[in-house]
Amino acid sequence: MNYREESLKKHAEWKGKIETVCRVPTDSREALSLAYTPGVAEPCMAIHADREKSFELTRRWNTVAVITDGTAILGLGDIGPEAGMPVMEGKCALFKAYGDVDAFPICLNTKEPAEIIKTIELISGSFGGINLEDISAPRCFEVETKLKEALDIPVFHDDQHGTAIVMTAALTNALKLAGKKKEDIKVVINGAGAAGIAIAKMLLEYGVKDIVMVDRFGIICQGAPELNAVHAEIAKVTNKSRLQGGLANAMAGADVFIGVSAPNCVSKEMVASMAQKAIVFTCANPVPEIQRKDALEAGAFIVGTGSSEHPNQINNVLVFPGLFRGALDVRAKTVNRQMLLAAAEGIASCVPESQLSVDYILPYAYDKNAHKRVAEAVAKAAVESGVAKKII
Amino acid sequence: MNYREESLKKHAEWKGKIETVCRVPTDSREALSLAYTPGVAEPCMAIHADREKSFELTRRWNTVAVITDGTAILGLGDIGPEAGMPVMEGKCALFKAYGDVDAFPICLNTKEPAEIIKTIELISGSFGGINLEDISAPRCFEVETKLKEALDIPVFHDDQHGTAIVMTAALTNALKLAGKKKEDIKVVINGAGAAGIAIAKMLLEYGVKDIVMVDRFGIICQGAPELNAVHAEIAKVTNKSRLQGGLANAMAGADVFIGVSAPNCVSKEMVASMAQKAIVFTCANPVPEIQRKDALEAGAFIVGTGSSEHPNQINNVLVFPGLFRGALDVRAKTVNRQMLLAAAEGIASCVPESQLSVDYILPYAYDKNAHKRVAEAVAKAAVESGVAKKII
Repeated sequence: MNYREESLKKHAEWKGKIETVCRVPTDSREALSLAYTPGVAEPCMAIHADREKSFELTRRWNTVAVITDGTAILGLGDIGPEAGMPVMEGKCALFKAYGDVDAFPICLNTKEPAEIIKTIELISGSFGGINLEDISAPRCFEVETKLKEALDIPVFHDDQHGTAIVMTAALTNALKLAGKKKEDIKVVINGAGAAGIAIAKMLLEYGVKDIVMVDRFGIICQGAPELNAVHAEIAKVTNKSRLQGGLANAMAGADVFIGVSAPNCVSKEMVASMAQKAIVFTCANPVPEIQRKDALEAGAFIVGTGSSEHPNQINNVLVFPGLFRGALDVRAKTVNRQMLLAAAEGIASCVPESQLSVDYILPYAYDKNAHKRVAEAVAKAAVESGVAKKII
Repeated sequence: MNYREESLKKHAEWKGKIETVCRVPTDSREALSLAYTPGVAEPCMAIHADREKSFELTRRWNTVAVITDGTAILGLGDIGPEAGMPVMEGKCALFKAYGDVDAFPICLNTKEPAEIIKTIELISGSFGGINLEDISAPRCFEVETKLKEALDIPVFHDDQHGTAIVMTAALTNALKLAGKKKEDIKVVINGAGAAGIAIAKMLLEYGVKDIVMVDRFGIICQGAPELNAVHAEIAKVTNKSRLQGGLANAMAGADVFIGVSAPNCVSKEMVASMAQKAIVFTCANPVPEIQRKDALEAGAFIVGTGSSEHPNQINNVLVFPGLFRGALDVRAKTVNRQMLLAAAEGIASCVPESQLSVDYILPYAYDKNAHKRVAEAVAKAAVESGVAKKII
């Protein structure tokens, strides 16, 4: 099937992938007096007396804003806020289908970090959580950091942490099959944007010791002149052996390749130069760094991609519905590192060791049980790390 | 029933009066490829090429933001954005129940008109219309005017125009019963805030010639020192006989009293001083200017109130669902005066002359046929006045 052509047709038929519905009776004078005026004055005054009650008396407790500025939509780049809406609406549909979260898409007509931050702050009282989406790097780092400081609801940049979580889960299970230990492996991450940086940070927390990051200009090495502030920061904790040169240099002898970069930048020779039982996650979207078939021919042991058409789809749709479900259930004030790692462990644990195989390292995106497990793991981590306002 | 107490209980049970649902299949790999990645790239690119397509390929065509800053919630005053949410959510529930409009509540954590305007501009690409709500005067005038200039979607301040429309409809039918002509009557409007000013403007357009406005300090008369800019403007086109003094002075001999002001400010004597077959719309909320019973005892011919507990409820819930339904159906670029007047005529026409009585001058709020008629009238007026982008 030509998914893109068929999808355009479907979108024109659907006229919207989400919809708002009414949950209360409205068909009599009495019903109106309870749901609307004069009765509604009482819940208003209850919230006026205690703002936290907005999580009990309105839909806020279950509502997440999916917010973009349209600058990094899929692999399409800066196509503008309205054009990003089909992706945001799709996320909202998946939030509901997999996490029973009410999500609402908001596209912002600005690229200024200060304006993005201000706007989200001003509307945040309507929401129980903020999911940032497809905001280009490095602006996304500032936006997320400042919003986390300003708000007492979970703020989560999916392109960073959703990707890092699902990648960590995939790696956890792939290492079991390869019989390698996280402490011993060398990981190459190609693409030092929002996703790549977040993956590196999470793998370090997870316990990986040797990570080499590569961007368009080559290997990221401390002191190199091309580094921006974010690169310089990550250079301090990666590439301990001070490798230099291009991607081919980095990949020689590596145990794991993680691509969140550009189409067709990895050759069969590069994969062949990796260590034995090489793990290759080639996730550029829609065209990967190297085709799955080519990577396997070149000797890769396990291959994961971003596409739903192949085994081992590494997609953050496995993360965000359950992560917010768990955070909302315990009224978490924030999303912390403990919750992120718990989500990765939750996903990895969905594939029983007896069923693990080189073509089945992650649960399917539409496996509702997986989302439930992520939610439980995240809620537990929130409670244990002291950021939950409610214990269930 | 104690509506307020019972309503608080119900709100705690409901945990939200609206909900977002998913409209598309998500339960297979193929379904995900169409609703989400990779298929979704195609509708994104279609909107990138023509932004107007966001009204065809996403839910924007049916989606309205209900936005407040929490400064003038019901008669409760400035109780803050979160505390305004139960009212906004209630409106969203009614938008859906009566107009099949997807409405989403947004409370803004600022009172600065410039910030309110900027925020709404920045998020407007997600919406097909903007319903402003419970923003206090005179800030609401600036917010509405500037947003109407900036945006190419309908912007409607319900407290002004919704109230003016339903009042005009009520007056139309009351005059039929009283056997009076709009050109000949004297109308007193008490309360020169957002609603009062909008009612005066609409009644003048409708054809009323003699209007006297009264505010806390007394009758609004050109040249009086207490007038603010908005009062000075309305003074130019009202009170042609240059009446001065207080409300009692204004009401003597008046055919119609319209109260959008404060509790208990009208006495039985004032009503008794009005012309014969006096029409009294006493809409302060929740406590009216004069109780219905007292107004009738003092000789009023027709009494309307804001309450659902009495006949002739004058409530703008009769307006907003149908008005936006009609505007969205034809992709109106704005809401103009023709559409407002058409909405008033549409509501008035819902009560057949054979059924009109002093206790039945308006359709019931939960009469779905009335909302349908408003929608049709508004859509027709939008097309005829040249602001519709789509003809149905």
